[in-house]
Amino acid sequence: MAIITLLTDFGNVDAYVAQMKGQILSICPTATLIDITHAVPRQDVAYGSLLLAQSVPYFPDGTVHVCVVDPGVGTERDILALEVECAIPGADRPTRQRVVLPDNGLASLLLESSRVVAKHRVTERRYWRPVVSSTFHGRDIMGPVAAHWAAGQAIDAFGPECAELQSMAWPSAVRVEGAVPRFRGSVIALDHFGNMISNIPADWLNADEERYSNCRIIIGERAMRLPLARTYGQLSAGQAIVLVGSHGFVELAVVGGSAAGDLRIVRGDLIEIELLLF
Amino acid sequence: MAIITLLTDFGNVDAYVAQMKGQILSICPTATLIDITHAVPRQDVAYGSLLLAQSVPYFPDGTVHVCVVDPGVGTERDILALEVECAIPGADRPTRQRVVLPDNGLASLLLESSRVVAKHRVTERRYWRPVVSSTFHGRDIMGPVAAHWAAGQAIDAFGPECAELQSMAWPSAVRVEGAVPRFRGSVIALDHFGNMISNIPADWLNADEERYSNCRIIIGERAMRLPLARTYGQLSAGQAIVLVGSHGFVELAVVGGSAAGDLRIVRGDLIEIELLLF
Amino acid sequence: MAIITLLTDFGNVDAYVAQMKGQILSICPTATLIDITHAVPRQDVAYGSLLLAQSVPYFPDGTVHVCVVDPGVGTERDILALEVECAIPGADRPTRQRVVLPDNGLASLLLESSRVVAKHRVTERRYWRPVVSSTFHGRDIMGPVAAHWAAGQAIDAFGPECAELQSMAWPSAVRVEGAVPRFRGSVIALDHFGNMISNIPADWLNADEERYSNCRIIIGERAMRLPLARTYGQLSAGQAIVLVGSHGFVELAVVGGSAAGDLRIVRGDLIEIELLLF
Repeated sequence: MAIITLLTDFGNVDAYVAQMKGQILSICPTATLIDITHAVPRQDVAYGSLLLAQSVPYFPDGTVHVCVVDPGVGTERDILALEVECAIPGADRPTRQRVVLPDNGLASLLLESSRVVAKHRVTERRYWRPVVSSTFHGRDIMGPVAAHWAAGQAIDAFGPECAELQSMAWPSAVRVEGAVPRFRGSVIALDHFGNMISNIPADWLNADEERYSNCRIIIGERAMRLPLARTYGQLSAGQAIVLVGSHGFVELAVVGGSAAGDLRIVRGDLIEIELLLF
Repeated sequence: MAIITLLTDFGNVDAYVAQMKGQILSICPTATLIDITHAVPRQDVAYGSLLLAQSVPYFPDGTVHVCVVDPGVGTERDILALEVECAIPGADRPTRQRVVLPDNGLASLLLESSRVVAKHRVTERRYWRPVVSSTFHGRDIMGPVAAHWAAGQAIDAFGPECAELQSMAWPSAVRVEGAVPRFRGSVIALDHFGNMISNIPADWLNADEERYSNCRIIIGERAMRLPLARTYGQLSAGQAIVLVGSHGFVELAVVGGSAAGDLRIVRGDLIEIELLLF
Repeated sequence: MAIITLLTDFGNVDAYVAQMKGQILSICPTATLIDITHAVPRQDVAYGSLLLAQSVPYFPDGTVHVCVVDPGVGTERDILALEVECAIPGADRPTRQRVVLPDNGLASLLLESSRVVAKHRVTERRYWRPVVSSTFHGRDIMGPVAAHWAAGQAIDAFGPECAELQSMAWPSAVRVEGAVPRFRGSVIALDHFGNMISNIPADWLNADEERYSNCRIIIGERAMRLPLARTYGQLSAGQAIVLVGSHGFVELAVVGGSAAGDLRIVRGDLIEIELLLF
């Protein structure tokens, strides 16, 4: 009943993912393999970190996640095996997850909402493929280690404890002092539906939901007055709305359309939201 | 040996599919998860309905299918659990399938060729995630219910029987009276190969196959005289042909090419076919 | 513990892959299904052959691979069941694989590095779907045969031994006589990262790695002097490099960029590499 997920920037055309899976199944033939996605933009460690943080906590305890966005493959960067306890909105208890990835900041966002239970460097070559290429550690090191871990090997077999992890600075949202609730944050993702996902925590909005029904939102040079909605289908097609998304952050959507397309929002844009009483 | 399929418009980039799978496996860790596709055009319930009807009948008895194309998420629309008996061409007996989806017409086309064995509304919150978002019922309701169903729960545990289902009008093909066989229908899909799939049943053509070897086909303003073929490789590259496709409907293809591209056909185009003796 | 992989040109949007999987699971419900890719360019047998050769050897012994790139579906071409022993770089012993595919050259490249243990034509209709379409043998013949094979059926049940296989000419790389090592080959693939993969074996380069640190590379009209690198992250962004890739062939990459895009390389381009002492 071992579950192993894969999250990479390998795309869905080449044989790279298949080679990883083949090597994983050669070690742990009963594993259930789940693709998180292989469409992380090439070498975009920050975006891989976001998808990892959004996905990992939802899996059953003991799932092994192997995540390969690895521009430094074959250089001195370490490879990590991490055991973490992750909180998720809507669950009564945290889940216990295992992650194998390069030490390049990929784990950063996941670790912001997780407790590290154990962290080891992956150095024991007996759990790797016998010959290791310089350019594909997903197949030759990370996949095999994930498979051995899922098959029952203990984390400390893979190498020594690790003192410090590489981390990546993530932008924080802030509350602005003033008479009405006002938040500043940034656009951390635009999803498949063109919804803009911010880093402003949903509970900042939730706390005030009752009193306020509209907001003023500033993105770049543009200011808009938009309704606060509970879900997409509440308003008519083409209407831009602000709502609490399923990731637990404030989102901006266009009903039946694409906020990203219609409003020309890009990842990294700064946003400011001010709640309005009427 | 529980099998759960997923069919959504979530795309393959975001964490939505992974979150659904994680929650499903948290309830039914031994499930085999099969992606039908996540590339249904955004919020295109009709296209989702088509892919569902084309896929579901081919799975083993008892497979649970969770299908999420859900523009009305979080509004008053119901969620359904359906047990259906589906006929498939080439099988000696129907298969028994289970489907979880929003009550927005998604099931329409499947139900045209299936017998409903049981239909229930999904209302029992004990089978949902403890906290339910307003915007992602695939993860919070439908996935968990599918998982409980696959894990052995009976359909009537999920909620009361449902009287009436929402349905969506599907275009019908018609036979036109006259001296020679003539059919009118429409283009219901253009596949990855650019083949045009109509809603004209294959057996209308099959019945006459022996006597006729060509047809006159009208699409929009254009009339063409095309050979009736048995398969693609029979004729030379670039030749447009009319044939019986594997879905059991009349198709138009260009050998080694794309009917959609070469002939500028779009979904929804009306077509008329008249069989020719020579 | 049966594993079945699928490699097709069906794309990820239509119901074709789902129908195949449904029929496979109807015969062998406990199979683990692995998608190699469904993004082989339409009807591109040569590219399918490459991906098959790159993927198959990495799977556990006894894995069944069903590969459908089949422009001649429904014509006289045979369908094959092959058992092969494949060598892979970095493994101490070959792996034993089973492959079901049309006899159209798809197996060619895999067979260049494999020993054929058994080869049979697939003719016994009792292992097919009862009704077979003219246009979809992946669902109606190859998928079912793969499933029966994975479920324990012996290869000789599927049909008689096969004398000769169709093969496809693959370009060979050559060493050019002269004072310094010089190789001529061609571009066999451009991967998701834009890396150019040649057919020049890695060990031709490896043997000389110590003495040479740069090379002269000619592609089309263009000649470039490029460093020989061990991995991508060694050099700075934008730098074009030549290195040994994870497939065991000489590659050309642009650090943090795309060799295909930046240098306008296409599949099939001829290349010549000459090692330089300084």
